[in-house]
Amino acid sequence: MNKGRLEAFSDGVIAIIITIMVLEIKVPEHSESLVSLKPLIPKFISYILSFIFVGIYWNNHHHLLHAIKKVSGAMLWANLNFLFWLSLFPFAAGWMGENHFALWPVIVYGVVLFLAAVAYTIFVIVIKRTEGRDSLVVQAVGNDAKGKISLLFYITGIGLSFINPWLGVALYFFVACIWFIPDKRIEKAMREQELNDAANRD
Amino acid sequence: MNKGRLEAFSDGVIAIIITIMVLEIKVPEHSESLVSLKPLIPKFISYILSFIFVGIYWNNHHHLLHAIKKVSGAMLWANLNFLFWLSLFPFAAGWMGENHFALWPVIVYGVVLFLAAVAYTIFVIVIKRTEGRDSLVVQAVGNDAKGKISLLFYITGIGLSFINPWLGVALYFFVACIWFIPDKRIEKAMREQELNDAANRD
Amino acid sequence: MNKGRLEAFSDGVIAIIITIMVLEIKVPEHSESLVSLKPLIPKFISYILSFIFVGIYWNNHHHLLHAIKKVSGAMLWANLNFLFWLSLFPFAAGWMGENHFALWPVIVYGVVLFLAAVAYTIFVIVIKRTEGRDSLVVQAVGNDAKGKISLLFYITGIGLSFINPWLGVALYFFVACIWFIPDKRIEKAMREQELNDAANRD
Amino acid sequence: MNKGRLEAFSDGVIAIIITIMVLEIKVPEHSESLVSLKPLIPKFISYILSFIFVGIYWNNHHHLLHAIKKVSGAMLWANLNFLFWLSLFPFAAGWMGENHFALWPVIVYGVVLFLAAVAYTIFVIVIKRTEGRDSLVVQAVGNDAKGKISLLFYITGIGLSFINPWLGVALYFFVACIWFIPDKRIEKAMREQELNDAANRD
Repeated sequence: MNKGRLEAFSDGVIAIIITIMVLEIKVPEHSESLVSLKPLIPKFISYILSFIFVGIYWNNHHHLLHAIKKVSGAMLWANLNFLFWLSLFPFAAGWMGENHFALWPVIVYGVVLFLAAVAYTIFVIVIKRTEGRDSLVVQAVGNDAKGKISLLFYITGIGLSFINPWLGVALYFFVACIWFIPDKRIEKAMREQELNDAANRD
Repeated sequence: MNKGRLEAFSDGVIAIIITIMVLEIKVPEHSESLVSLKPLIPKFISYILSFIFVGIYWNNHHHLLHAIKKVSGAMLWANLNFLFWLSLFPFAAGWMGENHFALWPVIVYGVVLFLAAVAYTIFVIVIKRTEGRDSLVVQAVGNDAKGKISLLFYITGIGLSFINPWLGVALYFFVACIWFIPDKRIEKAMREQELNDAANRD
Repeated sequence: MNKGRLEAFSDGVIAIIITIMVLEIKVPEHSESLVSLKPLIPKFISYILSFIFVGIYWNNHHHLLHAIKKVSGAMLWANLNFLFWLSLFPFAAGWMGENHFALWPVIVYGVVLFLAAVAYTIFVIVIKRTEGRDSLVVQAVGNDAKGKISLLFYITGIGLSFINPWLGVALYFFVACIWFIPDKRIEKAMREQELNDAANRD
Repeated sequence: MNKGRLEAFSDGVIAIIITIMVLEIKVPEHSESLVSLKPLIPKFISYILSFIFVGIYWNNHHHLLHAIKKVSGAMLWANLNFLFWLSLFPFAAGWMGENHFALWPVIVYGVVLFLAAVAYTIFVIVIKRTEGRDSLVVQAVGNDAKGKISLLFYITGIGLSFINPWLGVALYFFVACIWFIPDKRIEKAMREQELNDAANRD
């Protein structure tokens, strides 16, 4: 119903999350040399990676809500659940950067990525149920292969971190790469829908 | 009149409150072991509880404003008063988590919950007065039994905390549970209204 | 032209300012007694006062923009200038609370209040020029007596602080009181406009 | 397509960036004298300069999106890339202020300014490609001489900083001055477009 406000609130929360992550990169006190920035490099890398992930989620969230027709109470809660896990990104990213991609921080980061992805999947399922089998969203998301692959890669990444944390980071980054492009399926389905609508109107 | 801006501003403030609460969970410095996260567990529980409360308020606020037709000056101030008390959640949640749900932090948290609930009740009353007896909101909110029960439970929770703070936390959590589902009364009243409107149009 | 985005951006900035002020009230570390909250009382009073001021500005800003018909480049900058001075509230409020309303913090707080009021006045003047003499805004704001009185009271408050800082605080609070009610003039002028429009349509 | 949400998200991020910069000006603890504000002066100057830059970007971003007709996936990412570099302003500004405009902080600040400008230029290019050669945006932005000059001045500023950092700051400030006025070209092109549209309608 009031889709605009759901979008506005989510945008607000995601905008704040993406911006407060940068606060973990603290200004080095009483130090003006270029060298004093060196310890900040891992934090900066962690920030870039997390910025990309939050950016991807905002992008997909944007496309997903765009295809929705009505908002239910269950959707509001599924969305809040997703935002909750997303809100742990600044902490996880900060801890991982602070400790130069050490074992446990990388694993905790992966667990947060995994749980945010699960929460997003639940959100998609709730939307599918509300919108019905023949809806635009269902056609667009399909069997959500990319989503399922991501979950698998996060778990594999967490597992491989025990061998070498950088393997975990590499796998997380790989997931980011496969999501980098906004969901073509939804865009395609919407274009077709519009063509159909136009055809029906004539 | 300009309902959209009241919603946008409230969304902004609530989005910031819900997100800065997570800043109380500070990254443990120079410590990469999993054990270093253990002291953060009570803070994390406090964050979850507070996230749910703020989420409930956003949800109900969303439904409440959706049923409003015009915005008055008194509403703007009643809304700001409500947001003021909500803005104390990060402090109260942080103090409660920091001190592992000790007596006084739990009581102060309960007092903040109670005063936010009172402020929300005042907001509802102001809306009822402005919208008039036969309005959609009044029909939807009814005698607001759930709101009154919540106030009672908060006070009981504050009182029982003197026996054991966890009793207080349990009662606060119970209130969260009864509010978890968005206000069916408003949704129901709105659906009926729409049916009536549709019937009148024919 | 794109009034909505000017409102949205201003709402965002004001929402953040009003919320980060509460971050100055820091959780007392390793202290669960009620007494440990005592040093926070002046910060809390400072927060309440500042929350009311920012709330008043949001309220008046809301009414002011509501009466605008088109947005010019000069308005965007006058608005940003106003938001700049408003953004100094958290610092000024935090310093005043931290130092229990001592002389210089109270004076600096007054200077920030004064300069924010000047910036708001400039914003109103820019709007008046753009909208023209016969516009809704000009009729509504009139000679802006309340605005001029406020400036006078801020200066008086700053001066009296040298005798006793609490005199200054009292005068600042007095200004808050005279602005507490949203600008009836604009609301009244708009109602009349609507009646005229309705009459012309018939 | 959903231009509104792109604007809303960008507004949110820019509003947060412009406001958290002020958090770098920390309240002096246990010090109520006017003298204790003296070390904050360079931070304050750095804040003013950065506020103007972010304000300019918001202003131009506002005008740019206003002239867009449809939003593509590439635009979303080009916009996020721009917001990423903008999010480094609070860090760069804080470090420059903290170190009283010393050599490396001034250079890093210039590099961040430069990269944000590059990201903005990329955003403009992506928009031009999507909108097509005859679009409103392309006519409005033209060959983007002002943008190219800015990039040149940033590099010159970075270079001159090695002689004296204040030369660098002076050049950054000069760029701010030439952008201070919102892009008249877009405003002019849009006015012409409207006149044409009106003429065609008759």
